[in-house]
Formats: sequence, C-alpha cells, structure tokens
Amino acid sequence: MPETLLSSRNLAFELYEVLDAEALTQRPRFAEHSRETFDAALTTARTIAEKYFAPHNRKGDENEPRYVDGRAELIPEVKPAVDAFLQAGFLNANRDFEAGGMQLPSLVSQACFAHFQAANAGTTAYPFLTMGAANLIENFGTDEQKRLFLQPMIDGRYFGTMALTEPHAGSSLADIRTRAEPAADGSYRIKGNKIFISGGDHELSENIVHLVLAKLPDAPAGVKGISLFIVPKVLVNPDGSLGARNDVLLAGLFHKMGWRGTTSTALNFGDNGACVGYLIGQPHKGLACMFQMMNEARIGVGMGAVMLGYAGYLYSLEYARQRPQGRLPDNKDPHSPAVPIIAHTDVRRMLLAQKAYVEGAFDLGLYAARLFDDTHTAPDEAARHQAQELLDLLTPIVKSWPSEFCLKANALAIQVLGGHGYTREYPVEQYYRDNRLNPIHEGTHGIQSLDLLGRKLAQNGGAGLKQLIRLIASCTERASHHPALDALRVPLEQLVTRLQRVTLALLGELAEGKLSSGLANSALYLKAFGHCVIGWRWLAQAIHAELGLLNGNAADRDFYLGKLQAARYFLTWEVPGCHHELALLEASDDTCLAMQEQWF
Amino acid sequence: MPETLLSSRNLAFELYEVLDAEALTQRPRFAEHSRETFDAALTTARTIAEKYFAPHNRKGDENEPRYVDGRAELIPEVKPAVDAFLQAGFLNANRDFEAGGMQLPSLVSQACFAHFQAANAGTTAYPFLTMGAANLIENFGTDEQKRLFLQPMIDGRYFGTMALTEPHAGSSLADIRTRAEPAADGSYRIKGNKIFISGGDHELSENIVHLVLAKLPDAPAGVKGISLFIVPKVLVNPDGSLGARNDVLLAGLFHKMGWRGTTSTALNFGDNGACVGYLIGQPHKGLACMFQMMNEARIGVGMGAVMLGYAGYLYSLEYARQRPQGRLPDNKDPHSPAVPIIAHTDVRRMLLAQKAYVEGAFDLGLYAARLFDDTHTAPDEAARHQAQELLDLLTPIVKSWPSEFCLKANALAIQVLGGHGYTREYPVEQYYRDNRLNPIHEGTHGIQSLDLLGRKLAQNGGAGLKQLIRLIASCTERASHHPALDALRVPLEQLVTRLQRVTLALLGELAEGKLSSGLANSALYLKAFGHCVIGWRWLAQAIHAELGLLNGNAADRDFYLGKLQAARYFLTWEVPGCHHELALLEASDDTCLAMQEQWF
Repeated sequence: MPETLLSSRNLAFELYEVLDAEALTQRPRFAEHSRETFDAALTTARTIAEKYFAPHNRKGDENEPRYVDGRAELIPEVKPAVDAFLQAGFLNANRDFEAGGMQLPSLVSQACFAHFQAANAGTTAYPFLTMGAANLIENFGTDEQKRLFLQPMIDGRYFGTMALTEPHAGSSLADIRTRAEPAADGSYRIKGNKIFISGGDHELSENIVHLVLAKLPDAPAGVKGISLFIVPKVLVNPDGSLGARNDVLLAGLFHKMGWRGTTSTALNFGDNGACVGYLIGQPHKGLACMFQMMNEARIGVGMGAVMLGYAGYLYSLEYARQRPQGRLPDNKDPHSPAVPIIAHTDVRRMLLAQKAYVEGAFDLGLYAARLFDDTHTAPDEAARHQAQELLDLLTPIVKSWPSEFCLKANALAIQVLGGHGYTREYPVEQYYRDNRLNPIHEGTHGIQSLDLLGRKLAQNGGAGLKQLIRLIASCTERASHHPALDALRVPLEQLVTRLQRVTLALLGELAEGKLSSGLANSALYLKAFGHCVIGWRWLAQAIHAELGLLNGNAADRDFYLGKLQAARYFLTWEVPGCHHELALLEASDDTCLAMQEQWF
Repeated sequence: MPETLLSSRNLAFELYEVLDAEALTQRPRFAEHSRETFDAALTTARTIAEKYFAPHNRKGDENEPRYVDGRAELIPEVKPAVDAFLQAGFLNANRDFEAGGMQLPSLVSQACFAHFQAANAGTTAYPFLTMGAANLIENFGTDEQKRLFLQPMIDGRYFGTMALTEPHAGSSLADIRTRAEPAADGSYRIKGNKIFISGGDHELSENIVHLVLAKLPDAPAGVKGISLFIVPKVLVNPDGSLGARNDVLLAGLFHKMGWRGTTSTALNFGDNGACVGYLIGQPHKGLACMFQMMNEARIGVGMGAVMLGYAGYLYSLEYARQRPQGRLPDNKDPHSPAVPIIAHTDVRRMLLAQKAYVEGAFDLGLYAARLFDDTHTAPDEAARHQAQELLDLLTPIVKSWPSEFCLKANALAIQVLGGHGYTREYPVEQYYRDNRLNPIHEGTHGIQSLDLLGRKLAQNGGAGLKQLIRLIASCTERASHHPALDALRVPLEQLVTRLQRVTLALLGELAEGKLSSGLANSALYLKAFGHCVIGWRWLAQAIHAELGLLNGNAADRDFYLGKLQAARYFLTWEVPGCHHELALLEASDDTCLAMQEQWF
C-alpha cells in the first residue's frame, strides 16, 4: 500500500544519512536512546496518525466547529485522536524522563509530529498549541504557576492557547489595547478583545490556559510595554482543584477557507470586569517571552506547511501512477492503450517540482530541529551559541519558504488530478485550503521578510550569516569531490556569491539608516535567500545520495536517483531563476516604493 | 463609492484609447452603433450585474446546488438574475438585429459580460454556456434544428450545455465511449456517461439542449471518429411543443472547491436505451464543430479568470486604503498613529502585481475580442484571414495566462487582507476558489502549452507568429519615440529577440519529428511566450498612457501614472525573469523528460 503521510524511506534518509540522528545518542541527554527507540517512536506516531487523525480529516473540514450556547462544539472524532496522542506521550516528547517525558531530541520529535501534521492539520493544532503554551510556562513561570498550570498541561488535563491578535492589531502588536489592572491579591484584571485565537474554546480538556498579551497601566508605548498573562478559562484553586468560570467569553467563531477543524475564536476578556490573569515573566517583557513560543510556533508552522505539501505530493503521485489518459507524443496509433499520466513529461514536471519543494523543505525543517537540539545539547557552550545564532537566522526561512513553496506544491497536486482535483471528493483541494493559512499566521510573509532583512542578518554582527556562508562553502567543497554533482554545485555557488554581495550592499544601506529604501524589496530578498538555503540543503542531500549510490546499495538505487533528479530540478530549474531578483536588488529598483497610493 | 467589479475608467481607456472601439462603427455591421450605444450597453450590464448577480455570489457559494429527487435545486436568486440578463438582451448581444440581437461588436459585448463574470461566476455560467451552444447550432445546425432548438435558446426558453468529458476520458477526447446508434427515423440513440457537465441540470429554463460528443458505430478510432449530437433534456415535437422527457438521467452532482453556484453534473444518457439525439454537422467531424465552441469558451474562460482577479484586486485595494496597521520603517515613534497598509511598500508590491496581472490580461482579452470582430467585419478578406490566424495563435494564451496569473492575483488579494482574507466573511478567498477551476477546464494548462507549441505556432506556415512578431516590432518602434518608455521597451525587445531564436529551434526540432523532446518543456515555453504577449500589451498601454499625459488631461494624470507604473512593474519585474525559462529551453534541458517513474 502506498504511503500517504510521508515517505518512510525519505525520513530514514534524512535522519540516518543526512542529519545523523544517531550521533545525538552520544550526548548525555539522549544517551538512553538509540536508532531503535527513535524508530519505535516514529512507528507509534505513524500508527496513531493513520488510525486516529487521518480518517476524520475530511469530516473535520466539512463540519467545522459550531457555536452552541456559548461553547464551541467539535466533531466527536477529535477527542479520541487527541487522547491517543496524549496517551502515547507525544505532548511531552521532549520533556525530561523524570517529568514524565520521552526525552527525545527535537529532530526525532519533529519527525514524529510530522505524521500528525500530514494526517490532519485541524485536529493536530490542539495538542500543538498546548505544547507551545506549556513550554512557555516551563521557561518563564513561577514554581506556583508551574504547579497550577504547567503540570495539568503535562498531564494532558489542561490545554493552552496564545492570544495575541486584536481586531485592530495583528502584525502590529505594539498597538494592542487589552489592559491588565493590578488587583489587591497580586493577580490582575484583564480587559480586552482578542480574535483569531486558535483552540480558544472546546471541551477536549478540563481547562484552557490562555497566554494573553496585555498592557499594564504604566506601560510605555510600543512593543516595550507589552506584558504576558496566564488567563485560565476556569479559575484554579490553590490546591489545584477547579474553581469558578473565569470572565472569558467566547464571542464567536471565525469561518475560514480551510484548517476548519481548528476552532478560530473571538474571545472577550473581562466583559464583566472580573477576568483574572497572572503575570508571567517580567512586566513589559511579555513579547520576549511570547517570541520564544512564537519562534517554536514558526518552525511548527513551517513543518506543517511542508507536511500538507507532502501529503498532496504523495496523493497526486499515486493518482498519476493509476490514472490512464492519452498517449505519448510520438505515438500516433489511436488503438494503443492510454498511458498512466505519470508517463507525460509535463505531469512528471509537476510531480518533480512537488518533490523538490516538499523534500527540500522537509530537510530544512528537520535541520532546524537538529539545530534546536544543538542549542542545548551540543558538547560545548560555543557550539550551542552558534547553533542558536544560525537557528535565529534561519527561522524566517523555515517558516516562510514552505508556506510559499509547499503551498505551490499543493496547487500542483490539484493540477495533476485535473477536474477531479477540483472536487471535494479528493483530498488535494483541502490540503491547499488548509495550507493557505501558513503564509499568514504567526507573522505574515511580509513580516518574515522584514525580520530576515531588517533584524536577523545583522544580529550579533552577522554571526549567523557568516556561519551559514561557511556551511554552504563547506558543502560545495564536499560536492566538488563528486564530478557528477558539478552541474548542481555551480548554480548554487553562483547564487551564493552574488547573494553575499547584495546582502552587504543592503546591510550597508540599512546601517546608514536608509530603512525605507533598504527594506523596500524585502520580498525579493526573502525569495533569493530562501532558494539559496534550500539549494544548499538539496546539494547536501545530493551528496548523500551520491554516497548511497557509490556504497552500492542496489535496492535503494531508484531512491537515490530520484533524489539526484529532484536536486537537479531544484538547482537548475529554480536556483538560477533568482538572479532576476538579485538584479532588481542590485539596481535598488524602486518600482514599488515609488508607486503612489493615488495612482492605483 | 469604490467600484467593485472593474474600473470604468480603465474600461474606457481600453475601449476608446487603446483598442479604438469607435473605429468599429465605421464598419457596415456596426454602423448603427456609436460610443453612446456602447456605453449604454455597458451601463446596463454593470447595473444588472450589481443588482442581480453580485448580491448572491456568496450565498451561491455557501448553498451549492442540491440533488433532490433526481433534480438539481438552485437557490432562488439565480433565476431572477438570469432572467434580467436575458431580458436586457445580453444572450443575443452579438446576434443580428433582425434575429432579435443587439448586433454589438464582440469587443463591447465581452466588456459587458466582464461585469457579470466579476460579480458572480457561478450564476453567469448558465447563460454563457447557452450562448456557446446557441452559436454552435447557428453555425452547424440544419434549418430544422435551428427552428426547434436554436430559436427557443435565442428566446431564452431553452438553455444549453457542452457534454464532452467521460469518467475515463477528459483531456483525451479520442477515448470517449459514448455511442450513437442510427434509428429508423433518422435520429440516433445515445448511450454513455458524461461527467463534469456544467449546467447539466436546473429548472431555470423549459428545456436544456445538451451538445454531446459520441461515436457512430462505424467511427474510426481516435479524434477523427467523434460526432456531435443535439440531445434535449425534454423531447421537442415537430411543432416546437415539448414532448416527453428524454432518457437523460441526472446521476449526481459534483462538489467542488469553488464555482459552486454552477451545477456540475454526472449525466447518464440512454440508461433505458431510449435517449434520442440528432446529429449536428458531418459524421465523425464533431470535434471540429465542438472546437469552434471550445475556442469561444477558452476566450470566455480567460476573461472569467481576469474578472475574478480584477474583483479581488479592487477589493484588496480598497481594504488596503482603509485598514490601519503599523508604521513606516523610518518612524520609531510608537505614539504616532498607524498608517493604512497601502503605505507599506510590500503591500503596494502586492497591489501593483495584481494591477499588472489583471489589467494586462484584461487588455489581452479585449484585444482578442477585437480580433474576433475583425475575423468577420474587417474591410477585406485578407485582413479577416489575418485576424483569424492571430486569434488562433493567441487563444491558448488568452485562456491560460489569466488562469495562472489572475489566480496568482487572487492569492495576493488574500495575503493583503491577512487573517481576514482567510475567513469566509470576506470575498477574496472565494474568488481564489472560483478561479482555481480556470487552469483546469476547457483544456488544462498542459493542454494549452501543447496546443501552442505543438500546433498553433507552425499553423499556416507560422503566419500567425510572423504577424505577432511584426505587431510587437511595430509597438516597440512606436514606443521608441517616447524616451520615457526606454526602460520598458528594452526588456521586451530582448525577450522577443531571444524568444524568436528559441521558437525557431523548437519548431525545427518538432519538424524533424522529435516530438517527445521538443514538447518536453512546453510549460516553460508557455510562460515565456505568454509574458512576451502580455509585455507587448503593457507596452501598448504605456504608449497610450504617455499620450494621455502629453495631451494634458490633468484630471486623468494619476490614472496614467498608475498605468505607467504597472507597465514598469510588468516589464522590469516580470518580463526579464523569463530569460531563465528561455535558457533552459535553449539548453534542451531534459530534467523532467529524463525523470523515471520508479525514481519518485
């Protein structure tokens, strides 16, 4: 039976050939793990995803949560799925053994999670949001907050959300209006309205812990005056028992293009002046706390985008193998049987492009997870610090690149299925609709491009960037020992060389304070930089494919040849196209900057 | 109040500045028309589209046709809308005065139709399909067929469909299995199953006239054995009165990603062996008849794609003017008010790209309509013939380019609205979903690329292509008298020069019979050729904008400057990017051709 969520051969290639997951077991934190324990976790993830998540993916889309008597009502299949996820321990996959966790490397847990993201984006969001919220409380909460809110989340009894957006403030969090007034007991009274809060209401758990951005009375204006609060749906007594309902009202549900299985809510905090919240972290420093969660969320969003693309790719691939239609151009005999559409070159192009996008982005997502492991388990502090610098730099790409190109993969999957792809009888149009959220939430594409160009590149004196360039140079150097890879290596080298020049010029412009012009074409820069990163990852994969071929594993020959062809597609059909973006950047093109509002 | 369907200033620019609609009134067929009668028809179209079509666009999406007791049930708003369209005479906009028509040029009627396509793609499909079917019967039917089937369509009493696709045969019509057995009375008994038949059932009209592709018993294999039949839903007596129900069964409805207002049906012909059909045109020559309708349909699809893009552009433009969010990069004062998002350069980029796509494609669609007028009203036969040759060549671009790039415009409109754009409270996500059908139906994108490269380019010794190149050269020559346009003209000249070289090489390869390799990268060719055509149309618009500026119409200054900026965007941000595609074509790149099925 064909695989539907991801290719387990490709996953093994990533974990054990490209990213060397086994090396992690040499580190004290993962010493009790082995390839066998990793594979066991992966098999469990796949089994649960296939059994509990995938079967109601379409039903969740067709029956979005309903607003009933002030509550959000979900289809009944969601709870058993989430329960299976919890019972298998995935919520605490990375947590310490002694805290009830699996103490897995992120590399492996992200690979586990990937199965759920491919199977059912809507249902998966509930535990994922909870993981993010739990990690935030773990990092910034007091012992009391951990006892009252984190532990029940670890136990799977409470779920979590992040509540940032307000009706008038989305990308610009500086402008939030939600207020927090100190109360006599040390807690706060929260008042404000939040929208687009995913998982903001449901009855999957005993309680929901909202992490809410709000401003204290003495808050300075702007992002430096935002604080973070724990606001439970149901108040929690000091002994941990549940108290009264907090003053948090489900004001309504949003009806979305896709990702319909996840409740998207409007929440009113403090309509009756009685919404209790607890400050977490320092006053006015809430955004920094939230950004830790946000950075994790951005990697999660990126992997989610990859996996929707991956599921669509596998579906359209199988369809193309099965669906007969037409004949090859050289065959003029109308009596000859129709060929499966995979035989048509243009269909192969659409499949190869999907493969290049999803497997390239999958590699990058796992690479980022591996970096995250390095940030706290690399042997020395310098290496940990380096990993953090590189991860910071790559985060906007990990988030935005799959959101754009694995979405494009979904569009290609629809096209491969033709008229059938446009019907809701087949899953590919839902994958597109689900994936269409990813370039929007957790920082739009535009925000990612500004984050990369205006902040991350120059961070720490450009340390992350220098590291990336060294890593790419080391990769091209390794590739140069394989003459078969010359045609793949050269376009990457050419792009990197030119990208470096463009980057220096832009950073110079920004350093001179020319922000408007320097940032004007950030979208072009994001595209070129992202393709450079994915091109590097494809060259790395190609080297391992060459090694695989040389080491003579005959059974895997087709797999490695496919890898090389997808690498060739990406490095020769996609990477050289970025010179166009770089030429515009070099010319400091001001077409968009100069466009006047009244000219539209 | 902002315009929501299209910009009437832009329409006037196209009709009276770029395409010189008034010159058509010098021709005998349009002698009774004037700018005033054209504008009156356009105003009527806009009024009816706004009053009867736009208001139920979302309702039609949310309440797709239901299968009830073997019938398709539509929402009640569809019939009054279609009736208003009929009563205003638009169904016969191009037909002779004496046949009850408005005898309008296609240029003007397409501009009228555009309003309906922008307002409500789902409802508009019913009269549009009827127009296509009526034209086909008018061209190929016997007098008796015209009396019994065409006249009631002209009268708005019967509607029409085209029934081509079968469960196993979509792009490959050669493989259809529907059979037609001659009966003693000269009619035929039809037997077969058709799917994806738009408008295949409804109760908007007294009868539905299906135009069905089927094979006669002695049919040769392949496309040369396909015949065309009139198959009414209800049989028509010789005196024109309605008889018994024909043996045509509504087997079911398809549920689509978008375009939900239009019934998409599965029809069973002859389940009881009693389905009566009438041969139209010559035996085995049905595909040629159908292709006349199909070519019209392809222009209609292209314009439909343009108008969905256009509606999304206008909506996101207005949203961007109204929505405050964030501050400009140079402004560090958190106390300053938020700016409307149109002030952000990256938002302007997304709006400018939309403008470039939709106004460029709108121009091409109307240009094609003008060519269609020339095919039968140009002063001399040679000019008519030339117009037909050029129209044939451009048809795959008129169909496919908007289907790809005005769909991309819809994706950008969603992005401009951000989280709101992803909700169904705003229309932009529906525009995307509706538009997503256009690269699929009436010949997929892949089919269009093969039609262009494998058939149209070399047709009539390349006469259409030579004409196109002459027209582009004449346009760049005119542009060269405006130094302000140099930066726009040069990229087009460079692209055309290289495209010509690539075209000759590919045609040479195909002429040598190397079909597989010659056609392998037809998608790349379609992209470069399409951008060349739209680049030419943008340069033509830019010349007229320059003339408008020079002629000193101060009130229109902003309009013309916007045109010039959109032209600049397309010719400097889009056109030069195509050198990448041309480089791959020049290298006869075989990445996709060489990819093996077992490597995936």
